[in-house]
Amino acid sequence: MARTRLTPERESELYAAVLDLLREVGYDALTMDAVAARTRSSKATLYRQWGSKPELVVKALRHNKPVSLEEIDTGSLRGDFHAALSRNDDCQMEKDSALMRGLSHAVHENPDLYEALRDLLIEPEMTGLGLLLRRAVDRGEVRPDNPALKYVPHMLIGAFAARQLVEDRSVDQAFLLDYVDSVILPALGV
Amino acid sequence: MARTRLTPERESELYAAVLDLLREVGYDALTMDAVAARTRSSKATLYRQWGSKPELVVKALRHNKPVSLEEIDTGSLRGDFHAALSRNDDCQMEKDSALMRGLSHAVHENPDLYEALRDLLIEPEMTGLGLLLRRAVDRGEVRPDNPALKYVPHMLIGAFAARQLVEDRSVDQAFLLDYVDSVILPALGV
Repeated sequence: MARTRLTPERESELYAAVLDLLREVGYDALTMDAVAARTRSSKATLYRQWGSKPELVVKALRHNKPVSLEEIDTGSLRGDFHAALSRNDDCQMEKDSALMRGLSHAVHENPDLYEALRDLLIEPEMTGLGLLLRRAVDRGEVRPDNPALKYVPHMLIGAFAARQLVEDRSVDQAFLLDYVDSVILPALGV
Repeated sequence: MARTRLTPERESELYAAVLDLLREVGYDALTMDAVAARTRSSKATLYRQWGSKPELVVKALRHNKPVSLEEIDTGSLRGDFHAALSRNDDCQMEKDSALMRGLSHAVHENPDLYEALRDLLIEPEMTGLGLLLRRAVDRGEVRPDNPALKYVPHMLIGAFAARQLVEDRSVDQAFLLDYVDSVILPALGV
């Protein structure tokens, strides 16, 4: 199917509007009509370009991440983690946390949203993380049979989830960098 | 205020009914009327005994945990963790995960529920975990200045949250025991 190309600026504008709406009304109340009205585009264009609401929402979330993990290569595992966690500033992280809280319920009610989230956001981040860890193994920083290698996503996700649950605060960079140095690198034997 | 004592059996029965209802209809749709009807008790008794819906729900959740962390003392940190994670069988853990998924949204919408959850479930577990770690430090198993000590809750919560998000499965005992041995003990230098 032929698609009209949007300019990158117009695409960014659309994604920003989707995220604003998501923060304002939540996933369930976010309709393609509302997105069309807010962005002064036609619903037909939205569906032609993104196929469905879950896909549009997840593409907007992904667009939010300015640097992909795969592009990070500082020469050391610690440097890579610190660079990865410095991708967003604290204000952005607070906004991301608010989005994620709003989405966590919707994800369980909407298998389509979960699938889009997996394919477009979780899988690429896991692949990027895998490459980053693979390079650390190739450099000899981490033993290839280190059993913590397969649990790096769990450790990282724990930092985000527990900060909210235990401390009732959103993560910030200082916290994440200390967590990497205190937990993830020691568990990997670095 | 004088309270009529319920027998332990009757209390267990009530809590089980509350958890069943919670799994069936979710937190928002769970009313004191429904609990009263299901358990053939009066609403007045429920309010007199538990004060409020959030308190009743969290007490029911806590009752679900048969052994408190504080009672575990095997003589080694690894033994304590393994004993703690063996408190529930896999079927129970699957049921707990379902409950937690249902509650995670409600928690953000209901500050009263969050407070009850903190006071009655999260804080006591954190205190128990703190004691367990303190004993490991006193035995000389973990250095008192190990920076991972303050992040043990985060590592543990990550195991639960990420298993669902990354692998789309609930935790089971084999997974948790491997996670303790691969991540938590190495991060603590044990």
